[in-house]
Amino acid sequence: MSKKIAVLPGDGIGPEIVAEAVKVLVWLRDAQGLDLEMSEALVGGAAIDATGGPLPESTLKLALEADAVLLGAVGGPKWEPLPHAIRPERGLLGLRKELDLFANLRPASVYPQLVDASPLKPELVSGIDILVVRELTGDIYFGQPRGVETLPDGSRRGYNTMVYSEAEIERIAHVAFKAAQGRQGRLCSVDKANVLETTELWREVLTRIGQQEYPEVELSHMYVDNAAMQLIRNPRQFDVIVTGNIFGDILSDEASQLTGSIGMLASASLGTKYGMYEPIHGSAPDIAGQGIANPIATILSVAMMLRYSLNEPVWADRIEAAVSRVLDQGLRTADIHAPGTRRVGTHEMGDAVLAAL
Amino acid sequence: MSKKIAVLPGDGIGPEIVAEAVKVLVWLRDAQGLDLEMSEALVGGAAIDATGGPLPESTLKLALEADAVLLGAVGGPKWEPLPHAIRPERGLLGLRKELDLFANLRPASVYPQLVDASPLKPELVSGIDILVVRELTGDIYFGQPRGVETLPDGSRRGYNTMVYSEAEIERIAHVAFKAAQGRQGRLCSVDKANVLETTELWREVLTRIGQQEYPEVELSHMYVDNAAMQLIRNPRQFDVIVTGNIFGDILSDEASQLTGSIGMLASASLGTKYGMYEPIHGSAPDIAGQGIANPIATILSVAMMLRYSLNEPVWADRIEAAVSRVLDQGLRTADIHAPGTRRVGTHEMGDAVLAAL
Ligand SMILES: CC(C)[C@H](C(=O)O)[C@@H](O)C(=O)O
Ligand SMILES: CC(C)[C@H](C(=O)O)[C@@H](O)C(=O)O
Repeated sequence: MSKKIAVLPGDGIGPEIVAEAVKVLVWLRDAQGLDLEMSEALVGGAAIDATGGPLPESTLKLALEADAVLLGAVGGPKWEPLPHAIRPERGLLGLRKELDLFANLRPASVYPQLVDASPLKPELVSGIDILVVRELTGDIYFGQPRGVETLPDGSRRGYNTMVYSEAEIERIAHVAFKAAQGRQGRLCSVDKANVLETTELWREVLTRIGQQEYPEVELSHMYVDNAAMQLIRNPRQFDVIVTGNIFGDILSDEASQLTGSIGMLASASLGTKYGMYEPIHGSAPDIAGQGIANPIATILSVAMMLRYSLNEPVWADRIEAAVSRVLDQGLRTADIHAPGTRRVGTHEMGDAVLAAL
Repeated sequence: MSKKIAVLPGDGIGPEIVAEAVKVLVWLRDAQGLDLEMSEALVGGAAIDATGGPLPESTLKLALEADAVLLGAVGGPKWEPLPHAIRPERGLLGLRKELDLFANLRPASVYPQLVDASPLKPELVSGIDILVVRELTGDIYFGQPRGVETLPDGSRRGYNTMVYSEAEIERIAHVAFKAAQGRQGRLCSVDKANVLETTELWREVLTRIGQQEYPEVELSHMYVDNAAMQLIRNPRQFDVIVTGNIFGDILSDEASQLTGSIGMLASASLGTKYGMYEPIHGSAPDIAGQGIANPIATILSVAMMLRYSLNEPVWADRIEAAVSRVLDQGLRTADIHAPGTRRVGTHEMGDAVLAAL
């Protein structure tokens, strides 16, 4: 039976970079016989413009019926003035929640060819290979009660609720421990257990599951403020990091920036049933439509899709190897360009990866 | 009338580094005629060992009667197994709350002499001069309700409340805008207004106060995940950053780490009535008692105390200049030692600053 892929290009550079990733999928279908079926739909600002809302019913339906979702990026200044409930980000948060994509895997690793792109000194950067496992459907992102209330004296008060149930912590813990098993066997759980009861429970559950079910994984705990420091001070100490939604939002972006090549970084958002794949960078409205965006993060998101949702790990490996070969050839998009390398545009980079395949 | 200073050395390296800072205060009193009165008290783990709690009544009383508090550092592995309510951190949080120290000023700047200590490339680091203004008595740190509850099915759920009133946001906004006025005139407010209503209110209040009362300060807004990236990517873009308690905890530690010389960084926690001063580094139990800790952050905390609480800005400037001269002389404690410089211990560094004064 054919595997259905919902393709949601989104906004800004989304359509350009997704087009290159789709070229890879089409090639896998037409030249390699993989039974894939791609259908496109609107999300984010593009959907707001067309339908009034960031996640149209038809898009959600397509995603719910697909075996995997490929997302570009959403958002841009054009939609910033809109009220919260219908902003592009809601499309993304809606997809995460509706598809129950509770586990966000964000690898931050450095290609040897791109060590110099990092803001950090090369000796700190080379060999960085971190996987941030971020819980994605709980925490203060979705916790109730929330809002802004007016007090009797007429002044206002904003409030949001950080909340995690044991079951939510358990399921993300299993994802993280299993990921560590398949890597260097080290898991660092990040919390603020010295202040927040929610994360005290988090720490307790992680400890219990580790002792009971993954005794061979080396589990450590770190406060979030210290983690923000250690990522800069000595990023190589980390193998897998697991943390909640809001801390993960901050730390995974920090970790990605260490590499200096955020245009190369893919992500997977997984649930028990669905998987969504997207570059970790944003919609970059400032360079949209110029044909200079780096499509590699999106192409590598297709690799993650092949690995986690389509059961084609060999093709995932091959795509990753092809990307590395293209870097060896000295091809670079503007974001990672350096003296002595050849600057190419979005299409040319996509074609080069395909050729290397 | 003499100015009363409550001296709370705390744990780990706290007593060693505070001793050097007190030497400076004593010299100001004895050799320069400043009318200062120092009294010491226990806080944190040291207080737990002596009295059973991290913030004894007598310590709180001393702080409430003082013109300024000098704090070393609290905490250590010895007290980690204790229940939350009586852990060393509670002493610190209790002092902040009882003294209503709502504004935490954490400068992160790089001495030209120490540019190479940074994990970042020198061209990104030189000239960094960031002031993080962190709200310190609100947010999810103190918000109610909070706790871990057991649900009818026997499973548990942890929850904490992020909360800010307009009044709380206003008062920290004023501190931040005023700080920006006295610096480069640029204020970046960090929030997560695309997801959290609390910080949507934060953004609205900052915008209003800026327009109404500080039109000459250039106000910008940044999401916390982006701020975590931008701090690494291009730290020089920042002048003053203002943010809530939990985001400030994370970002100020990240910013401090950029300098590579966290042993040099002081902080002030201010309310309308009180001021508390402490190095931003921790109690470093691993090197406690060895006489190798860097006392400069604590000595510079005394400089901040002279500026903000004791109305002696000239002495503050002089201490800061003395520290710079000692660096010029090539003296370095272990944490900032580099080839070609002279390695000194805690006492020797304290003495050198005093001599340079
Ligand atoms: C756009 C925003 C809602 C989103 C988040 O905060 O999760 C983004 O920052 C991300 O990390 O995917
Ligand atoms: C020790 C801890 C409670 C404290 C905090 O989180 O505020 C510390 O990290 C700090 O930044 O002063």
